[in-house]
Amino acid sequence: MRVSELSRRADVTVPTIKYYLREGLLAAGEKSGANQADYDDGHLARLRLIRSLLEVGGLSVASARAVLAALDDEGLAVGYVFEVASHALPVTVPPPASAITPGVRRVDEVIAARGWHVSRENAGRAIAARVLDDYAALGRADLAANVDAYAEAAELVARADLDAVAAATTRAAMTETVVVGTVLGDALFVGLRRAAHEDAAMRRFPPPPAPDSEETRS
Amino acid sequence: MRVSELSRRADVTVPTIKYYLREGLLAAGEKSGANQADYDDGHLARLRLIRSLLEVGGLSVASARAVLAALDDEGLAVGYVFEVASHALPVTVPPPASAITPGVRRVDEVIAARGWHVSRENAGRAIAARVLDDYAALGRADLAANVDAYAEAAELVARADLDAVAAATTRAAMTETVVVGTVLGDALFVGLRRAAHEDAAMRRFPPPPAPDSEETRS
Repeated sequence: MRVSELSRRADVTVPTIKYYLREGLLAAGEKSGANQADYDDGHLARLRLIRSLLEVGGLSVASARAVLAALDDEGLAVGYVFEVASHALPVTVPPPASAITPGVRRVDEVIAARGWHVSRENAGRAIAARVLDDYAALGRADLAANVDAYAEAAELVARADLDAVAAATTRAAMTETVVVGTVLGDALFVGLRRAAHEDAAMRRFPPPPAPDSEETRS
Repeated sequence: MRVSELSRRADVTVPTIKYYLREGLLAAGEKSGANQADYDDGHLARLRLIRSLLEVGGLSVASARAVLAALDDEGLAVGYVFEVASHALPVTVPPPASAITPGVRRVDEVIAARGWHVSRENAGRAIAARVLDDYAALGRADLAANVDAYAEAAELVARADLDAVAAATTRAAMTETVVVGTVLGDALFVGLRRAAHEDAAMRRFPPPPAPDSEETRS
């Protein structure tokens, strides 16, 4: 198909498609004339994935490129694809902590208590530690009391994620599950947590009655 | 203190402080001369919070401004602060779905099955629905099988979050808990999920042995 049809079917403008081509997110189409290229269903599928990673997953273009490269590299072990995907985050990854801060110590305690095997280079370990250190810097070390509940929830989600990976029958489907499930799974959890917050908050803190006409008149 | 001292103590450059002042994230200091202003510990605490929201929470400046305004508005009910914080997200919030897509229907089923009270305008509901619709568009509707495990985990985290809010003794501490806990809590969960992934992935898919010298020689 021509780029105009690709644009229409993927609901992505032609200038945006050209940007993705320049940034190396989308492979070039097959040359079919001086100023024309031909795209296939693989391009369409990849374009939809790029949009999801950027728009719903909140990834930067650089993160999306790294994740897509891992997806395409058939030599990578599935475990390693997880490692690449683990660096694709909607939040900023702090530099690996050179010092063992109180946050790092607390996260390592949680990891040990749950019997997790996690390397020192794990991006998630550094992020969780940074959050705990930030709680303390903000004078809210009390919020760290929640870390056990969060870890239990994270384990529940990670097990479900690995069930999905193990259910895939081809290596390509497995790595796609890792990439899509890791990035869009973050957004799915964030969404469901916000929905659960509304329920929990409204139960404990019912909103005050809406101001009636007497008050708005005064 | 002078802006130079504020900069040093918060570890934020003076141009960045001026940017936050212009953007309305940080209140102006007290004028103490023609070109000087005086800042206090309240400014220092706010500056640390701004950095956490932007850097660790991954919020945009506009989202951070909305969240900080909710924090400062003493007339807001705590339940409503949750609503404002729920729109501060590291992922892109899709426009409210005008059509009831299959994703919206599935999320509403999950909400009903768990007995949650969630309004149609809830930002999280729209995000979760968008993710499920994206799974389907990517040809991976099978990934939606995980939504129940995610919802269970979200409920676990939301309850812990509300415990923290209820433990606060002043309205100011409550709203701060909502804001800090919602935004940094996203990052904490993302981090712990990545750590749990490494553990779960390495158990199911042990990495291949490192290439030995024979192979690298060939």
